[in-house]
Amino acid sequence: MKVREVQHPAHIVPLAFLITILIGTALLMLPVSRADAVGAPWIAALFTAVSAVCVTGLVTVDTGTYWSSFGQWVIMALFQIGGFGMMTAATLLGLLVNRSFRLRTRLTAQAETHTLGIGDVSSVAKLVLFVTVIVEVMTALALALRLHLGYDLPLAEAAWSGLFHSVSAFNNAGFSIHADGLIRYASDSYFLAPVMLAIVIGGLGFPVLQDLRNKLRDPQHWSVHTKLTLVGTAVLLAGGAILLLAFEWANPRTLGSMPAGDKLLSAIFASVSARTAGFNSIDIGGLTHESLGLHYFLMFIGGGSAGTAGGVKVGTAMILVMLVIAEIRGRMDTEAFGRRISHSAQRQAITVLVLSSAVVVLGTVFILHTTEIATDRVIFEVISAFATVGLSTGITADLPDSAQLMLILLMYIGRVGTITLAASLALGEHRMPFRYPEEHPVVG
Amino acid sequence: MKVREVQHPAHIVPLAFLITILIGTALLMLPVSRADAVGAPWIAALFTAVSAVCVTGLVTVDTGTYWSSFGQWVIMALFQIGGFGMMTAATLLGLLVNRSFRLRTRLTAQAETHTLGIGDVSSVAKLVLFVTVIVEVMTALALALRLHLGYDLPLAEAAWSGLFHSVSAFNNAGFSIHADGLIRYASDSYFLAPVMLAIVIGGLGFPVLQDLRNKLRDPQHWSVHTKLTLVGTAVLLAGGAILLLAFEWANPRTLGSMPAGDKLLSAIFASVSARTAGFNSIDIGGLTHESLGLHYFLMFIGGGSAGTAGGVKVGTAMILVMLVIAEIRGRMDTEAFGRRISHSAQRQAITVLVLSSAVVVLGTVFILHTTEIATDRVIFEVISAFATVGLSTGITADLPDSAQLMLILLMYIGRVGTITLAASLALGEHRMPFRYPEEHPVVG
Ligand SMILES: [K+]
Ligand SMILES: [K+]
Repeated sequence: MKVREVQHPAHIVPLAFLITILIGTALLMLPVSRADAVGAPWIAALFTAVSAVCVTGLVTVDTGTYWSSFGQWVIMALFQIGGFGMMTAATLLGLLVNRSFRLRTRLTAQAETHTLGIGDVSSVAKLVLFVTVIVEVMTALALALRLHLGYDLPLAEAAWSGLFHSVSAFNNAGFSIHADGLIRYASDSYFLAPVMLAIVIGGLGFPVLQDLRNKLRDPQHWSVHTKLTLVGTAVLLAGGAILLLAFEWANPRTLGSMPAGDKLLSAIFASVSARTAGFNSIDIGGLTHESLGLHYFLMFIGGGSAGTAGGVKVGTAMILVMLVIAEIRGRMDTEAFGRRISHSAQRQAITVLVLSSAVVVLGTVFILHTTEIATDRVIFEVISAFATVGLSTGITADLPDSAQLMLILLMYIGRVGTITLAASLALGEHRMPFRYPEEHPVVG
Repeated sequence: MKVREVQHPAHIVPLAFLITILIGTALLMLPVSRADAVGAPWIAALFTAVSAVCVTGLVTVDTGTYWSSFGQWVIMALFQIGGFGMMTAATLLGLLVNRSFRLRTRLTAQAETHTLGIGDVSSVAKLVLFVTVIVEVMTALALALRLHLGYDLPLAEAAWSGLFHSVSAFNNAGFSIHADGLIRYASDSYFLAPVMLAIVIGGLGFPVLQDLRNKLRDPQHWSVHTKLTLVGTAVLLAGGAILLLAFEWANPRTLGSMPAGDKLLSAIFASVSARTAGFNSIDIGGLTHESLGLHYFLMFIGGGSAGTAGGVKVGTAMILVMLVIAEIRGRMDTEAFGRRISHSAQRQAITVLVLSSAVVVLGTVFILHTTEIATDRVIFEVISAFATVGLSTGITADLPDSAQLMLILLMYIGRVGTITLAASLALGEHRMPFRYPEEHPVVG
């Protein structure tokens, strides 16, 4: 029972994010942060700070023209801190959950494994930092070179753009210094490929990266979580690209006018990006109804646990898929890759899915009630905020303050809430002194 | 293991419904069924027959003017047969599931309890018939009296209208002989009250009615299913009415121009009706965006198991609610009213919810892809068909044949699929000779 008394880090994370947001807001309100040297209004500064710290990328003002060079550095620092903090915090919480689970199943009472030592924190933070620096530097170099050689950008400008987009990609932040996102690079695979690679690596999540790094040649020994995440990611990436290609092939506002090769590149990029990065190389406002619906799905699921991705996470969704498959096959246990998925993991996954859906529904109803915008666009923006994707059909900048505040709340809950919720649920479970008799109520 | 070999009734139900539909279609294609004595086209006849047998109430042609008096009798017979058949079949399947569950948990191998005897079938059918006749006759009398005395309708006409709407209400069919539904009775509580009573009684489902009938004064001994269904129904009815009142209070196209008393009556009626009956006393096409969203929710959940209601059922949704509550409270078991809900019931409930959502999503994407209709209206019509509600924002009649065929498929799957699916899942579960080691993958 001691687990419940320990002051676990699930309480510290929301506070740490809040403080970072407040500092970011204050910095962005300084006149030096604005391109025209007049302090930004609090709501624009707050929205941008929350969007950056929660690595969302939704904006109410154009990053490249509204903010000064200093302001853009602040924004980049905020999403770097946000991404790094999220990855570290979620990995540490996962460590704690895992220890508590092992403790309960093995019944070996080692009291010290309840808590995290300072050694855990620093070793995880060091590893996260290592991965971050490696991926970001390599991506930045590739992008800067491409911009310098392919677009004749001066070296300083190419380096700055390369760095900004590299950090933004790895942290799945989706911020761009261009008002139209990456549409200008829509047919440039030399630019988009490194971006996609950084997005996917950042989005897989730290536990998966660690498994890949330690046991790359030994897939049998990957954890079930790694296998579920990799399979789920592959299916979502490929399925998303194929469906987008089918839905947008002839749409003149998106892929219609492109040659076939560019259609393929754009569909793949959109599929990669929809699951939380939030860069766009096509006009999201021009998507067909069915592609918008596909985006709801991809955005809501998001990326891997304990990474820079948002959403309910691929692993969570895959547990649900495995549950349904087991039920249809008539298996007593929910199984995956030769392992039985614990009842508590299943129930936690469902709880995360249900509560996340409830938040999305409440947010949608609120904005529908306060504006006159079409339902499909409101749902899109709400899921984009909650899953910290940052794609937009173009309505965010024109929303009234109340609706912008709702998006701010959704970004914060979506980013901080999902990881702390899952950890709190897992750590909060306790055995009862007795069990009620079993009953099998009617279903369906 | 014998359970899996027994030819259980889950296979007969889909076939029986299909045959009834084909006979109904043939009858409605006869010239004598049409008001203008020319045979109806096959798609109109098929759509109407499916809608009637699946007690949905969606129509592509106006019931009161398109069909002759004979055609209307055919339609009424179809939804009476459909409702009766559904209630009987689902009750029998539930009986089978319950026996199989008891058998497995008690491990007393009584082979004969695997199957249903002819005695079970006739006793359940008799009881269902008894309830049906009692409720329908009383409702028809009340409605006919009201129409005769309050609206000066000739006795024969009042009796016909009373009978049609009574049978339609108890079977949650939602068919009306008026083109605008029950809008003309929007402020007439003498007419709407008996209709609502019949809807709710039919929609609670047979297991609940039986519990109420046998142990009305002894609520402690009601089954968990009865308690879950009653609590869920009460919350949905009250919550739905309150939210509709809030969302539509000032909407000039619905409640806006009514006096406060009529607003309340209309909101209550709409809340009762949304969960599967499908009568409308207000213009559904005029609802606000947020009310449409509320309808998605109410329609998708539907009514009680083994009744005339559609949807995933209140009991299924309540199991999910109990699961989430248990997880948040940190309880190892999912509990309700002093009972532990079996793992298999939980997994079945989730499977029904996931597969139902998948059907709704696929149906929506299909219709979005083949038409240019706004997403929120397409979702509405698809859920209305799948949950056999029959409310419409007015798009059904104008849909192309392909989309109408999709709605036909959705009605059939929604009605026949949900009950046979749950039973098949419950009966299909089998123990494995070994279990895999347990693992707790990352969630969130
Ligand atoms: K993002
Ligand atoms: K109906």
